[in-house]
Amino acid sequence: MTTEEELHPDDVQQHLREVQDLLARQKLVESLVHRQDMPRHDLVETLVHKQHVASLQAKLDSLHPADIAYILEALPRDERLFVWELVKAERDGEILLEVSDAVRESLIETMAPEELKAAAESLDADELADLAPDLPPEVIQDVFQSLDSEGREQLRAAMSYPEDSVGALMDFDMVTVREDITLEVVLRYLRRFEELPDHTDKLFVVDREDHLKGILSLESLLINDPEMDVAEVMRKEAIISFEPEDDADDAAQAFERYDLVSAPVVDREKRVIGRLTVADVVDFIREESEAEILSHAGLREEEDIFASVWDSVKNRWAWLAVNLVTAFVASRVIGLFEGSIEKLVALAALMPIVAGIGGNSGNQTITMIVRAIAMGQVEESAMKRLLKKEISVALINGVVWGGLLGVLAWWLYHSISLGAVMTAAMTLNLLLAATAGVVIPMLRQRLGADPAVGSSVLITAITDSGGFFIFLGLATLFLL
Amino acid sequence: MTTEEELHPDDVQQHLREVQDLLARQKLVESLVHRQDMPRHDLVETLVHKQHVASLQAKLDSLHPADIAYILEALPRDERLFVWELVKAERDGEILLEVSDAVRESLIETMAPEELKAAAESLDADELADLAPDLPPEVIQDVFQSLDSEGREQLRAAMSYPEDSVGALMDFDMVTVREDITLEVVLRYLRRFEELPDHTDKLFVVDREDHLKGILSLESLLINDPEMDVAEVMRKEAIISFEPEDDADDAAQAFERYDLVSAPVVDREKRVIGRLTVADVVDFIREESEAEILSHAGLREEEDIFASVWDSVKNRWAWLAVNLVTAFVASRVIGLFEGSIEKLVALAALMPIVAGIGGNSGNQTITMIVRAIAMGQVEESAMKRLLKKEISVALINGVVWGGLLGVLAWWLYHSISLGAVMTAAMTLNLLLAATAGVVIPMLRQRLGADPAVGSSVLITAITDSGGFFIFLGLATLFLL
Repeated sequence: MTTEEELHPDDVQQHLREVQDLLARQKLVESLVHRQDMPRHDLVETLVHKQHVASLQAKLDSLHPADIAYILEALPRDERLFVWELVKAERDGEILLEVSDAVRESLIETMAPEELKAAAESLDADELADLAPDLPPEVIQDVFQSLDSEGREQLRAAMSYPEDSVGALMDFDMVTVREDITLEVVLRYLRRFEELPDHTDKLFVVDREDHLKGILSLESLLINDPEMDVAEVMRKEAIISFEPEDDADDAAQAFERYDLVSAPVVDREKRVIGRLTVADVVDFIREESEAEILSHAGLREEEDIFASVWDSVKNRWAWLAVNLVTAFVASRVIGLFEGSIEKLVALAALMPIVAGIGGNSGNQTITMIVRAIAMGQVEESAMKRLLKKEISVALINGVVWGGLLGVLAWWLYHSISLGAVMTAAMTLNLLLAATAGVVIPMLRQRLGADPAVGSSVLITAITDSGGFFIFLGLATLFLL
Repeated sequence: MTTEEELHPDDVQQHLREVQDLLARQKLVESLVHRQDMPRHDLVETLVHKQHVASLQAKLDSLHPADIAYILEALPRDERLFVWELVKAERDGEILLEVSDAVRESLIETMAPEELKAAAESLDADELADLAPDLPPEVIQDVFQSLDSEGREQLRAAMSYPEDSVGALMDFDMVTVREDITLEVVLRYLRRFEELPDHTDKLFVVDREDHLKGILSLESLLINDPEMDVAEVMRKEAIISFEPEDDADDAAQAFERYDLVSAPVVDREKRVIGRLTVADVVDFIREESEAEILSHAGLREEEDIFASVWDSVKNRWAWLAVNLVTAFVASRVIGLFEGSIEKLVALAALMPIVAGIGGNSGNQTITMIVRAIAMGQVEESAMKRLLKKEISVALINGVVWGGLLGVLAWWLYHSISLGAVMTAAMTLNLLLAATAGVVIPMLRQRLGADPAVGSSVLITAITDSGGFFIFLGLATLFLL
């Protein structure tokens, strides 16, 4: 990315480094002040100190709120709070909206109720609704009192929708026009604006009761003869609009599929009540995919990398606890066969291979099925077909990889029957993994649960315990 | 999502079900034709058959290309190809652009060179560049011949940039204006267009040599007095533009951070050569996060869920092979201690717990560090601090969970010293996991490798082999 002033793709990183540099100099001065506590130096040092602070402040004032948010996230706690103090108060609200949840919490903690109130009052109703869950109740109360009745209504509406709904993402900034006027009138109307809402690529054509009658894109406003009526030019059919109760994920897919920039949000009577923009959708997509990736590793939420040790422990413990239980179950399965292992200790060395490969193969299957379900592309009717395919893949892998491992086991332990048991156990565990990988997400979907949550834990638990049981069981039956 | 015709959020699924329904009826007719091979029925059946095909075709003609792509992806191979045959030829190109790579391949396979050529010729140069890698060379050759010199130049340019660069995402549709004209002239100029390029939210102000002088947003065009000059109204400072060599991921982050809809792409001399739009960026973000999620499960690419068994095996084998090697190494580590296991078989049952919990904890650490590095928020200087924090977290977890497991082992096997070894091994393996989780991605970044690729495999390999070694080693030293 370049601007006229020759900035480069990594210009945020550049900003970050500059801020870090200024902070380091600032620290140096402070350490000098502390070391040489001689009164006559005081004045000089205070001046140098002030100079650094001033240049840091100037740097911060020149940055986009999103860039300041990025820098705050990248700084350790003490430096972060130092920078936060220097940010102009009227930008607090915008910046709080941009930072990650964890960092937002750390910033809000340090702010006085009046500061929070001032920050909150600088925001629109839909932005305020995003921030509200992190604010102390008395601050929200105060802010609510200060709003006019329309603002209160909007805030109440925005806060009433569940997190992953269109209502939670929508804003209330939109330009509406009537259908019985000419484009010339619309053009004159727009010239009365100081600015248009961000991402205005279309105007919503409504009647007196705000019912959506059509869409007037800026494009058709611009390319058509100004003498024409809005009604002649507006798009009346196949208008893509959303209801606030709609799933945000469906809306995001629609934005992606139809390349939308903005779309009206209407109530059941088709009255326009808000607007969804691609900026909100992009943020939503990014957050969703972050959450999915983090949940794969059992992290509850994005962790502020400079979070306290204690916060990190809390963020991660649930997953470790679940894992401990599944590992303990697998261990008890092995415990059942301690007699067999005592007689043939090679089993102990070989069993983790069977369990591990099964887990990996199962994770491949379940990842694919979960994603296909999420896209809405897998009907129940396809289940049999998918199961058949996955089982065929598992059979091939079982024979090939299991056969290879069987040969290895035979070579290592000079026992052809041990090799045969290894191959059989691998194949069976891969079949178990394939079946569980298809059936678990399908069943969970039918039961109305999210097929993705914890799918990896579940499948690994099954293939671990199952793998140990199959391998040690077969060995006990055929080798001892 | 609703349209004027009362469609609902899941309307693509609705379309899919309608198509599936029509296909099912179609199949029924075909099976009747096959069963009762009586000539006098022929006419009737052919008629019924034709009717179904006609209604299917009508349905398809009414759909957006992205919706047809969605439906093609959701259909098994034979039905997919049947539907593909019915799609109007002039829409082939657009639809091929929308489908996933795997499905695109399956569709292109069935098309004659002339069909492919016709489909390709319906596309813009930047779209053609996306499709080109999947087309037979002779088709590309033919299409290239049919382009005018500007088109050839654009196609050559678009194909010359690496996959994850801005150049590969940009298009060549843009409206440029000069700075010395009035807004009124711009408005009149725009009225000469049949349509504006998608996602036109700003016009690029250039000089005679196409050097970027400023940005005229449609907003400022609309809200300002038409008598004003472009130069007075356009934005001249802090214009966000990209170079074609810029990293697409950086560009995507900039679009997200600054809520852009479109941005100019310029060469080194600041000549405007193309344009990046939020639609391309959204597609890129979605593909990136898909790829990341799939790679966690060791899937090379998005798999067509109705792919042949053989294609699926190929997509998955590399990961299984890597896994086999790491599992074999871990197995050999256990092999070193077979004597100890023979003497104390409880070790065999307890060792997978130590390895498993270590793997999970290590994956949590590495996921966090890799993400922070990807955001550019971790400098080398932060490494010591992060390492210290992760080691503290590991110590706490080791003492708490390791202690709990030690008590369990003591209770199960009536050996307090076995419990103590269990606790010590858990703690040491968690420390190993934390260290590796911080150091591996940092080192890989310094070596210029992508810290994300295979990070999960690496850390699991280390914590598995390490966990077995630590636990069995401690047991051999202190228990036997």
